[in-house]
Amino acid sequence: MNAIPENTGLSIPDYMAGLGRAARRASQQLNQVDSGRKNDALLAIADALEANYDALLSENEKDLQAGRSNNLEAALLDRLTLNADRVAGMAEGLRQIAALPDPVGEITDLCYRPSGIQVGRMRIPLGVIGIIYESRPNVTADAAGLCLKAGNASILRGGSEAIHSNKAIANCIRLGLARAGLPEQAVQLIETVERSAVGELLRMKDSVDIIIPRGGKGLIERVSRESLIPVIKHLHGVCHVYIDDQADMEKALAIAVNAKTHRYGVCNAMETLLVAEAAAADILPALKAKYDEKGVELRGCQKTCSILDGIKPAVEQDWSEEYLAPILSLRVVADVDEAMQHIAIYGSAHTDAIVTEDYSRARRFLREVDSSSVMVNASTRFADGFEYGLGAEIGISTDKLHARGPVGLEGLTTQKYIVLGDGQIRV
Amino acid sequence: MNAIPENTGLSIPDYMAGLGRAARRASQQLNQVDSGRKNDALLAIADALEANYDALLSENEKDLQAGRSNNLEAALLDRLTLNADRVAGMAEGLRQIAALPDPVGEITDLCYRPSGIQVGRMRIPLGVIGIIYESRPNVTADAAGLCLKAGNASILRGGSEAIHSNKAIANCIRLGLARAGLPEQAVQLIETVERSAVGELLRMKDSVDIIIPRGGKGLIERVSRESLIPVIKHLHGVCHVYIDDQADMEKALAIAVNAKTHRYGVCNAMETLLVAEAAAADILPALKAKYDEKGVELRGCQKTCSILDGIKPAVEQDWSEEYLAPILSLRVVADVDEAMQHIAIYGSAHTDAIVTEDYSRARRFLREVDSSSVMVNASTRFADGFEYGLGAEIGISTDKLHARGPVGLEGLTTQKYIVLGDGQIRV
Repeated sequence: MNAIPENTGLSIPDYMAGLGRAARRASQQLNQVDSGRKNDALLAIADALEANYDALLSENEKDLQAGRSNNLEAALLDRLTLNADRVAGMAEGLRQIAALPDPVGEITDLCYRPSGIQVGRMRIPLGVIGIIYESRPNVTADAAGLCLKAGNASILRGGSEAIHSNKAIANCIRLGLARAGLPEQAVQLIETVERSAVGELLRMKDSVDIIIPRGGKGLIERVSRESLIPVIKHLHGVCHVYIDDQADMEKALAIAVNAKTHRYGVCNAMETLLVAEAAAADILPALKAKYDEKGVELRGCQKTCSILDGIKPAVEQDWSEEYLAPILSLRVVADVDEAMQHIAIYGSAHTDAIVTEDYSRARRFLREVDSSSVMVNASTRFADGFEYGLGAEIGISTDKLHARGPVGLEGLTTQKYIVLGDGQIRV
Repeated sequence: MNAIPENTGLSIPDYMAGLGRAARRASQQLNQVDSGRKNDALLAIADALEANYDALLSENEKDLQAGRSNNLEAALLDRLTLNADRVAGMAEGLRQIAALPDPVGEITDLCYRPSGIQVGRMRIPLGVIGIIYESRPNVTADAAGLCLKAGNASILRGGSEAIHSNKAIANCIRLGLARAGLPEQAVQLIETVERSAVGELLRMKDSVDIIIPRGGKGLIERVSRESLIPVIKHLHGVCHVYIDDQADMEKALAIAVNAKTHRYGVCNAMETLLVAEAAAADILPALKAKYDEKGVELRGCQKTCSILDGIKPAVEQDWSEEYLAPILSLRVVADVDEAMQHIAIYGSAHTDAIVTEDYSRARRFLREVDSSSVMVNASTRFADGFEYGLGAEIGISTDKLHARGPVGLEGLTTQKYIVLGDGQIRV
């Protein structure tokens, strides 16, 4: 078991520094471990989660009781809850990660240079990853599993409201690591709810290589502001669908409805629908009927309101709002150029889609829209690690550097150059 | 011509904000420009540099005179000097960049997913790059050329001692851009020597996507500390060669001499030589004879000093020193494990090499040493964009994220996901 500051009398900085040193050592050991051993550990953790189901649920119940007496919102309590499905989901997720190919050690682009040396790139772990997340305890297992498979040690900081659940999951992780002969420090949970531990973590630049925050905007902004360590982050998702006047209107309807209504509280849901002026009078009434059926509130620009009677006018603020709710802003634009301008101004560089049968407009949209995912004739809801074939994702990055879009195992690694020679020297 | 704050009465923050807005607009235009047009501009800039040779030299003379009256060191004056060779070098560099393949728009990994969508990645420019560098004026042309080819707008801040030379070069760049019909704001020089302009640049996170500092350690550390924008940086190069007891001693001698003495003031020069104990008595005297010939000062560990009479003992500080001079620290280690431990503790994750004929040790060294370049039987001096086949480099990154090692055109780009569908929705 990790030392818990409350029990040991360690100060938070000393406790955190200890975690950092242990993580660095563990990451050096992990870098040398075979894929088979890492997979054994992942499978053993999955087994341990299932074997300790009763303990997980009783620890989770402590968190739920505390949450109820602290009057946590129903949505938060739901996210906090572990049950048979969710424990099975964590175990299944780990088994899927075990089945993915190991990215570490892959050598690419190895070729001979005129000097006679061979130059290539080898994929390697990032080192130590700090993950800061909010209420959902299953993130503990998911994040630990992805980091482990990519050869990284991880330091996990979950929400204080899930501390008992997270400790119970971390216990299963330690059991699995030990069973596979891997160091228990490969995955360490911060076992104190002291808020200053987060501040410490963000400053440990000698022992932590990267920070990944997962949670609401407030958390992400605090982490970005305070961290001395590079951050891979997802800020927000103001996703657009643009329906061109050359769209197949059946596809357009299906995509616009799916992108908004398939799930509301997710970052790849559409928040603003842009419609080409020449298509607006045709498609907007049909769209409104569908949205009305689903109970989606519409907020339209002036032109939209002149076509659709009685809907709420959108205000400037609406164009940059991530509703995460059954609300949609609608704007009529002249053409693909005005649509792309709107996206450049109000978008969040997450996911944007065009619906069109016009080859040249599709080609321009793909090249010119600067978002982590750009789509033609597909629902923005596809922006997801599983749908993209990454197998699993630790999040969706809206940064420009390193990893953009869904971040899977590859995003948790980096590359170094390797040079193979036969005694070559520079002349 | 750009507005110069001294002439316009603009405040530095307003001046810099103007550069930022113009750069963002230019980057949006550059993203849509054909490779041919970018190459035309690069060739036109090269021509303009040659056509304006006399003006370049007379402006450079102003900087040199100022430098002499400010008692600049001889080495700095040399770096500051433009002459026929260096102007030809700038022009040739730009022509080489024009001849490189355009990384922008390359689509990779495009494949069908079970849902029917096709998912792939498209390589795209980073956007706006801020480059902060010291005395060498040719960086103005090199950096502008690389950024332009990769589709990025750039904001350049050269050393104040080179301001006249840099303005003259920037003038040629504008001529070339205009001749190719590209916006002049694609490359902007900060035309004030006010130091606060750098601080402004580092905070312009809405208009600048990445900062690349090139220069001494003091500059890099200031930029890393102050920047609100992600930085691609080269901190320092404490490079090692480890001579294993299974090394071919002829190759070992050649590599150890080349890595140290080919050039002293460069980041990929060896600073510490590690020698396996079983080989030390054999090879150290031969090495000393070679280094003596070249006038290299040796500083050895206790064991080294017991084999080589009369050399200076190394102190702890020597193991982490980047000499950039004819000085070498030497340490006898038990084996490859102790060598890798030494590198992990004292190295700078730049470039490290093993000399061995032992297959398993070579394989372990390649995997376990966590440096941007790891080599077997080759001189560390090969860690270079040209030698690696990148064509040109903007620097060598010792960071872990995004770009590691020599950074060429690809390191100045990023990737987005593209999705091609036929009306697919998530079910």
